[in-house]
Amino acid sequence: MSAELWRLTATEIVSKIRARECTVQEYAQSLLRRIEARDDAVQAWAYLDPQSVIKQAEALDAIPLPERGPLHGVAIAVKDVIFTKDMPTQFNSAIYHNDAPQLDAGSAAILREAGALIFGKTTTTEFAATTTGPKTRNPHDPNRTPGGSSSGSGAAVGDFQVPIAIGTQTGGSTIRPGSYNGIYAFKPTWNAITREGQKIYSLILDTLGLYARSVEDLELLAEIFAINDDTPPPQDFTIKESKFAILKTMVWPKIGPGSAAAMEKAASLLRAQGATVEEIELPEHLNDLPAWHDTVLRSDGRTAFLPEYAIAKDRLSDELAGHVENREKISRKVQLEAFDKISAARPVVDEILSRYAAVLTPSVPDEAPLGIEKTGSAAFCLIWTALHVPVINVSGFKGENVSKKVGEIFEAEGGWRRALEFTPKL
Amino acid sequence: MSAELWRLTATEIVSKIRARECTVQEYAQSLLRRIEARDDAVQAWAYLDPQSVIKQAEALDAIPLPERGPLHGVAIAVKDVIFTKDMPTQFNSAIYHNDAPQLDAGSAAILREAGALIFGKTTTTEFAATTTGPKTRNPHDPNRTPGGSSSGSGAAVGDFQVPIAIGTQTGGSTIRPGSYNGIYAFKPTWNAITREGQKIYSLILDTLGLYARSVEDLELLAEIFAINDDTPPPQDFTIKESKFAILKTMVWPKIGPGSAAAMEKAASLLRAQGATVEEIELPEHLNDLPAWHDTVLRSDGRTAFLPEYAIAKDRLSDELAGHVENREKISRKVQLEAFDKISAARPVVDEILSRYAAVLTPSVPDEAPLGIEKTGSAAFCLIWTALHVPVINVSGFKGENVSKKVGEIFEAEGGWRRALEFTPKL
Repeated sequence: MSAELWRLTATEIVSKIRARECTVQEYAQSLLRRIEARDDAVQAWAYLDPQSVIKQAEALDAIPLPERGPLHGVAIAVKDVIFTKDMPTQFNSAIYHNDAPQLDAGSAAILREAGALIFGKTTTTEFAATTTGPKTRNPHDPNRTPGGSSSGSGAAVGDFQVPIAIGTQTGGSTIRPGSYNGIYAFKPTWNAITREGQKIYSLILDTLGLYARSVEDLELLAEIFAINDDTPPPQDFTIKESKFAILKTMVWPKIGPGSAAAMEKAASLLRAQGATVEEIELPEHLNDLPAWHDTVLRSDGRTAFLPEYAIAKDRLSDELAGHVENREKISRKVQLEAFDKISAARPVVDEILSRYAAVLTPSVPDEAPLGIEKTGSAAFCLIWTALHVPVINVSGFKGENVSKKVGEIFEAEGGWRRALEFTPKL
Repeated sequence: MSAELWRLTATEIVSKIRARECTVQEYAQSLLRRIEARDDAVQAWAYLDPQSVIKQAEALDAIPLPERGPLHGVAIAVKDVIFTKDMPTQFNSAIYHNDAPQLDAGSAAILREAGALIFGKTTTTEFAATTTGPKTRNPHDPNRTPGGSSSGSGAAVGDFQVPIAIGTQTGGSTIRPGSYNGIYAFKPTWNAITREGQKIYSLILDTLGLYARSVEDLELLAEIFAINDDTPPPQDFTIKESKFAILKTMVWPKIGPGSAAAMEKAASLLRAQGATVEEIELPEHLNDLPAWHDTVLRSDGRTAFLPEYAIAKDRLSDELAGHVENREKISRKVQLEAFDKISAARPVVDEILSRYAAVLTPSVPDEAPLGIEKTGSAAFCLIWTALHVPVINVSGFKGENVSKKVGEIFEAEGGWRRALEFTPKL
């Protein structure tokens, strides 16, 4: 039986360990076997030391029951742009090869304190700031990208190598791999989870993201990170008579046939359950949101990568050196205007979103592209990052059960502003 | 002669070392003697290891002339909420007693790469997030506070223990100690300098700040941090015929006699030099800016201190635990409204400030308060932190020379939005 422990969600393994039906060590060994079998094909890890995992598991098993945290023994993967005190943090950058500053990021500290088994560091694009893929392959098709920049976290959860993981998003780096790997991905409101100890690309955009294979697991993580709304989610929420929207933003022309079909199917399934589904657009004066996002991103990159540029310009990718050198010649005036226009857009969009139980919009243009050189397009995600709106990726639409859960988690996390991104199943 | 090297500004010592008129070691020893003589009275340091300072100095002396950076050999103090890889970072928190994760903050890395002699860590209030003073005393009067939270950085520069220092500001933590210690203090535009590796209190407010005893030194630092405006400062700027404003904000009723007199004197000196000085106010709909700042601060503290609360609630001050517990019961709705209202205020205020060569406003209500238990009021600073406006503290007003330089540096840094805070000399 214990051979199959790797199949379990976080919520399932938590209760199994609590009921003493298995030890953390048995669980860890099951995952390590799974990884051993699958690592050649997927390559999700930037760092994983089986011996140290087992040692951590032993220490967790030694903790008396009353002193255990809500995540006791659950394996979690950490994107390699987030500090962990017992592992290197390398940012997929030659500058930080084997660098290990013995520091837990705020998020890692909270998870560790809750009893999580910090399993290892997962691959990323360079500093989570480029679209050049790491070695990782999509677990569903090794010829395709798992997306990025949270490539390894998305692939590891999608491939049952760990049940949950943390990633980050500045454009589409949490939601896109969520979609491509067929898992739940949650980008909370900006700054709802501390970004302490997480590499900076853009202060106003970077957001910590969460991965899981079940809605219950996202709820468990949300609780640990104390993400909550002013009022608890309604217990009696039903799809029937609820009002949803399908939002076609300014990037809708980039939609592929897979995502277009998924959106149509989503709408018809919701309507079949008695929901109202309106088709809406954003006001025209927000059409430049993607351009404003791009301006903020590049000019924030100018500040963010100056240290690396100063230390070792030759080991920084040309793209990031370009930000520091301001090759696009973005003036301070244009930078500030983009920042202020995005700021002004937030309450406008929040008001629109607040009219619906949830708003559905695609996570990605279409299925994961072929090749691992590039991590795909963030076009459908980036405005939501800029707008600080909480977003959940839901992979495919299998019918009422999934829809219902989506509604529930959405109520729990979205509050007065909410959007929901949809994705075609790979 | 070398006994007096501690008196020099950064700009002065840089050229002295470059001209081989002294070594970095001689310079370091001079500062260490100054500190030895003064430390009992001032107590600016949270960590200072003379042996490691001398070792660093030796290494700097060994670097061949052509490979030296623009700050070669200059001693700089680092506020103890900013990581330095060769020293502990303790945040004035029992939780981080002797913690030393061997990591340079982005700012520290840039300074080190420029050749700075990272001298030691300077005192702070707990996590730079309270107004409870550390052990440090005002170098001009040991019965008074040096201000906070950048207490040690302000006092060390004010007492000639180092020529320059870095601090941080979330309310008034850079400008206020600048004023109380009688030195130049520069809070640049938010995110103009990377905050990587600097403890987070509020992402949208925290700003790295700079201290010096001369305008040239601030310019030198601004250059190293690549802070620049769209157009270089005008070479032919004159006070005569320039337009200034004295800005009386919503907190003006808190003004004391010292600051009020300084502002009047500033205006009359500028007028005597042929400048126009208008008295202006902010639009009435911005009267709640201090309340919005407070709301953002407290609710951001809820996110920022959750890791420490999870790890060791009992070693976190009650005030900061209160943020995490949201004792003020700030709803997410109110938090978001405050965030959005501050955002909307930024372009409004920028437009007003852009009408003037510089805008003068007090740094502090009055001279440094008696006692070191409390670090004083940030009332006159905090709206400028929230508005992301660059601010320079100028201590006293000694006549045309200072005014002229103020104008120059201000043109260099301020650009299309600028404010200048004035302070009574202690």
